[in-house]
Amino acid sequence: MKTVDGGCFSWVRRASFEGGFFGPIVSGVRGKMLPYQWLALNDQVPDGEKSSCIRNFRIAAGLEKGEHGGFVFQDSDLAKWLEAVAYQLCLSPDKELETLADGAIDLIEKAQMPDGYVNTYYQLTDISRRWTNLRDDHELYTAGHMMEAAVAYWQATGKDRLLKVMRRMADHIMGVIGPEEGKLHGYPGHEEIELALCKLYDVTGETKYLHLAEYFISERGREPNFFVQEQKRLGRDYQNAGAFGFAYGQHHLPLKDQETLEGHAVRALYLLCSAADVALRTGDETLKEACRRLYRNVTGRRMYITGGVGSSHIGEAFTFDYDLPGDTAYAETCASIALVFFCRRMLEIELLGDYADTMERALYNTCLAGMSLDMQRFFYVNPLSADPEASRRDDRKKHVLPVRPKWFGCACCPPNLARLLSSLALYAFSVRDRAVCLHLYVQGNFTLDTQNGPAALKVRTEYPRNGLVNLTLGMGDYDLLLHLPGWCKEYHLSRDGKKTHPPAENGYLKIEGPFMETEIILDMRLEPCRVYANERVREEIGKTALQRGPVVFCLEEKDNGPCLHQLSLSRNEPLIDDADPSLPGGMAIRAGGLRQKPASDELYTQTPGQKERATLTFIPYYAWANRGENEMAVWIREE
Amino acid sequence: MKTVDGGCFSWVRRASFEGGFFGPIVSGVRGKMLPYQWLALNDQVPDGEKSSCIRNFRIAAGLEKGEHGGFVFQDSDLAKWLEAVAYQLCLSPDKELETLADGAIDLIEKAQMPDGYVNTYYQLTDISRRWTNLRDDHELYTAGHMMEAAVAYWQATGKDRLLKVMRRMADHIMGVIGPEEGKLHGYPGHEEIELALCKLYDVTGETKYLHLAEYFISERGREPNFFVQEQKRLGRDYQNAGAFGFAYGQHHLPLKDQETLEGHAVRALYLLCSAADVALRTGDETLKEACRRLYRNVTGRRMYITGGVGSSHIGEAFTFDYDLPGDTAYAETCASIALVFFCRRMLEIELLGDYADTMERALYNTCLAGMSLDMQRFFYVNPLSADPEASRRDDRKKHVLPVRPKWFGCACCPPNLARLLSSLALYAFSVRDRAVCLHLYVQGNFTLDTQNGPAALKVRTEYPRNGLVNLTLGMGDYDLLLHLPGWCKEYHLSRDGKKTHPPAENGYLKIEGPFMETEIILDMRLEPCRVYANERVREEIGKTALQRGPVVFCLEEKDNGPCLHQLSLSRNEPLIDDADPSLPGGMAIRAGGLRQKPASDELYTQTPGQKERATLTFIPYYAWANRGENEMAVWIREE
Repeated sequence: MKTVDGGCFSWVRRASFEGGFFGPIVSGVRGKMLPYQWLALNDQVPDGEKSSCIRNFRIAAGLEKGEHGGFVFQDSDLAKWLEAVAYQLCLSPDKELETLADGAIDLIEKAQMPDGYVNTYYQLTDISRRWTNLRDDHELYTAGHMMEAAVAYWQATGKDRLLKVMRRMADHIMGVIGPEEGKLHGYPGHEEIELALCKLYDVTGETKYLHLAEYFISERGREPNFFVQEQKRLGRDYQNAGAFGFAYGQHHLPLKDQETLEGHAVRALYLLCSAADVALRTGDETLKEACRRLYRNVTGRRMYITGGVGSSHIGEAFTFDYDLPGDTAYAETCASIALVFFCRRMLEIELLGDYADTMERALYNTCLAGMSLDMQRFFYVNPLSADPEASRRDDRKKHVLPVRPKWFGCACCPPNLARLLSSLALYAFSVRDRAVCLHLYVQGNFTLDTQNGPAALKVRTEYPRNGLVNLTLGMGDYDLLLHLPGWCKEYHLSRDGKKTHPPAENGYLKIEGPFMETEIILDMRLEPCRVYANERVREEIGKTALQRGPVVFCLEEKDNGPCLHQLSLSRNEPLIDDADPSLPGGMAIRAGGLRQKPASDELYTQTPGQKERATLTFIPYYAWANRGENEMAVWIREE
Repeated sequence: MKTVDGGCFSWVRRASFEGGFFGPIVSGVRGKMLPYQWLALNDQVPDGEKSSCIRNFRIAAGLEKGEHGGFVFQDSDLAKWLEAVAYQLCLSPDKELETLADGAIDLIEKAQMPDGYVNTYYQLTDISRRWTNLRDDHELYTAGHMMEAAVAYWQATGKDRLLKVMRRMADHIMGVIGPEEGKLHGYPGHEEIELALCKLYDVTGETKYLHLAEYFISERGREPNFFVQEQKRLGRDYQNAGAFGFAYGQHHLPLKDQETLEGHAVRALYLLCSAADVALRTGDETLKEACRRLYRNVTGRRMYITGGVGSSHIGEAFTFDYDLPGDTAYAETCASIALVFFCRRMLEIELLGDYADTMERALYNTCLAGMSLDMQRFFYVNPLSADPEASRRDDRKKHVLPVRPKWFGCACCPPNLARLLSSLALYAFSVRDRAVCLHLYVQGNFTLDTQNGPAALKVRTEYPRNGLVNLTLGMGDYDLLLHLPGWCKEYHLSRDGKKTHPPAENGYLKIEGPFMETEIILDMRLEPCRVYANERVREEIGKTALQRGPVVFCLEEKDNGPCLHQLSLSRNEPLIDDADPSLPGGMAIRAGGLRQKPASDELYTQTPGQKERATLTFIPYYAWANRGENEMAVWIREE
């Protein structure tokens, strides 16, 4: 078993975020989001949907009487919260959070059954039914999240109580499910545990965990279909048709034979994370190739400009290539978080700037849009256009909320955001042999473990507000690989004041060490630009969206008046940066535009309408819906 | 009781359709559609969904053993078929159809219970449950359709067997439901019987039928809500929320207080038909005003350019003002038929050309699109754009079929079309005092009953293929009111070769009698034009649709290649008429257009795409989907 190694995790030895774009966000997770979510888990958020999460554990631990509340996967909300707390404790100590976490872990330990099983849903309903419905009942998914929390908490604090609990659970699972005769030849309905098992393998060195992860991936989609047999045992006829057919859970084909990413978007992307994790540890080239192929499919044909994925609320799922309607989009926050997870893993497999570009796209747009600027309200669904009246009156758009709710009964997204943002250093950096790779430009002080020892980086940048990144590289014999974002067409790079021109290779600029308090300045020209969707995207043809660096912009009714669809932008109209602090996000784009004038009261007329000049104000997409209910649109007609 | 009056109905004494646009259609209903539908009702259409309709009656009549098949309203398919047969028998005798109809009526009579009740669903399931669920179980709706059939069949043939059956049923209903103490103070979940009761009143002179129709309308939407109480008796808590709340069945408010037309589109429009029918007979001004107000709402804010209504498949319902998405439209064939029904009734209330315009719009577009050119396949849903891949892969568009099925389990639309088309003379003409009003230009010979005696009209026209209408007015002292369609900007009118210029009043040109084999020629300039939707229609902003007279056109993939969304039309591009007989509908429009060229494989790019010239071919919307599965679009981007 690896040591805790100074109270931090993986290749990041030390990380601290200060100022810049992400400083207040990362500290906001600690100061606002995690305490708020703790209240939510304890059913103490007024007007929010009830969680019952902690209560379920208290009942299972014998400390309270009552019935199970919430979903079958309710335990996972606590797991993600614990994992986020662990990452925060890596950044800096927090007695209060640690005490809460220790208390929660105490509950989980008390709730665990003598045979290692821990899942409040089955413990509080009918324990004899456990492991009978892997397809729907999320036991493996929930266990996976708790294993991730256990690993992170041990790495962060050196405390192994939860790790021991979850190893017992993992061993219990291996007694029930697996390739051996007499066991269930199954796999999870909702993927997640596979990547957790890889982490468990990393920290324990036990290959059995890696093998189980491999088994879950390779067994999935094989004939005869496990879920058909399982559902038959439950007396149900499970057919491969409709939105909830086999593809919904990615078991329509073995992963290695899948050409397109299908079904429930979060599940599909967790599966890819798992496959990348296993491939990274086993070197399995077939799995790597499947990951690359499906990455190309999702990012080349099935991803919104905001990094949102999953075009339909029916099954929270992918639909088909180039089908990206903005107004009925699902684009779950968790799905974009999963896309970030997957990209980081692909960057470990191979250093291609496109993975970092996708990570930026998802992070700065859909992930951040998942929460309000005050970090107390959350979106589950992230549409590319919203019309409050449609959301109220049209049942096809009921899922498209124009304001963020305080909490959800199914609250997967808020704690998932908390764990992503708290572990941002793991996404901003990676280490390859003697090189430190910088994928995301975030301000802070970081120490990374390279082959040749630690590398200390001081990053000063307001990115993505501007394109200037100032790096101070601590002494050491290592190289630096700087991500050159795909959106960047012009940049200057200097080393200790002298211009340098390393070639960009696969989207990265290589600056060779050794360094000795070396100052690197990367100055990327960052200005508003127009982006066009591929001509096969039916819904956005003839339209443009504005982007500035990685940040996608949108129009809101508050700034542009109602009926945003009546606005258009001429092709040659200049786009003006306006760092207006009074607007959400504090970085607006202004442009002269046109508004369709009311023609007549007639519904249909032979007379074409006239247009009038209008000033358009675009704010960052992630900052929308922070001023009450109003219309929003990312794409605008271009004339 | 009025006499049969020569074997025809209402103000139309005699009608025959020959040649022209509708001749083959009306005779096709008799020669192809009705025999085909008879096979369907008898479960003899291979690969079509099973009807069980006739079989249900045979079982109820004791001639066969078995269980009820199909929906709770399955009987209504036979009713509409019988009504259509009746109208066909008015046009000319048909021994074979009449024998089939008599046989069916024999079955219905045998199936009727001693107390007058006839509804195979409850008779074959649990008769003790009849009248317990007026909200869902369509007993009144089914009875209404059968009453309409009974009246029409009596008017057509003088045979009153079915009329007697349905009067017994009406009397049975009046024993169970009504304002009197001890009866159910209810009304139908699906409106229809109200207008049937008005017809029953017309032919019997019995005011009790009219009063019941009035009661159904006035009781609807009153507090306490009948359906809440009813559902409570069934042990169900019925709340007024979501797509299937009170507005779904138009009982959220009394009709007189409704400002917008809401809920299930067919139900809502049948309610308006009923209200117009009652108002016409009672002179109720409040009802008339409600009809006008809701007519304005639906045609001014909630109607597709094709005359389709009901924007959402969820609840087959209206959504909100100006919400008219083309790709997820429901626009049920029956809803447009109901709109035609309603317009004709409004024309009886007041002669306004706008009603006739809407009738034309619905008839020539959505109604006709409801069937294939060979009249053997039918659409239930009539989208304004279709993409077969989306219909297959996207569950939000599963209802949008790109090819017409042979039959439906819920087959309300095909026989509804049959009865509309067979009674076309009732929509083409009406009589006001001494004037014959011509609303629709259809070729044929017609005799109308005016105040001053019969008026014989010979109409020769290929309308809407061209705008020339040649009328020969038989001898008589009556006036003629010719509808001047709203789309018509230029026309010439002559009387016996001499130009005449009567002012158009409310959309009608008045030509004063007496006539003596007078020849009237109306020559309307009919050429392709562009139509624009109101700027509040989000989905069609920046787009245009082509119309030629009342006919709306569309692009099909067969003529224009795939990815129709990539096409656009410059504003000044001339539109060329092309009466190409090889194309469906035989009247195409050609125009030079642009096609977005493939730019790159990237999903998002900063480089705007290029366009190339393309020749666009538009065919009539009603003729789409007659050449196998392909894309279709009514609206095209205009540049």
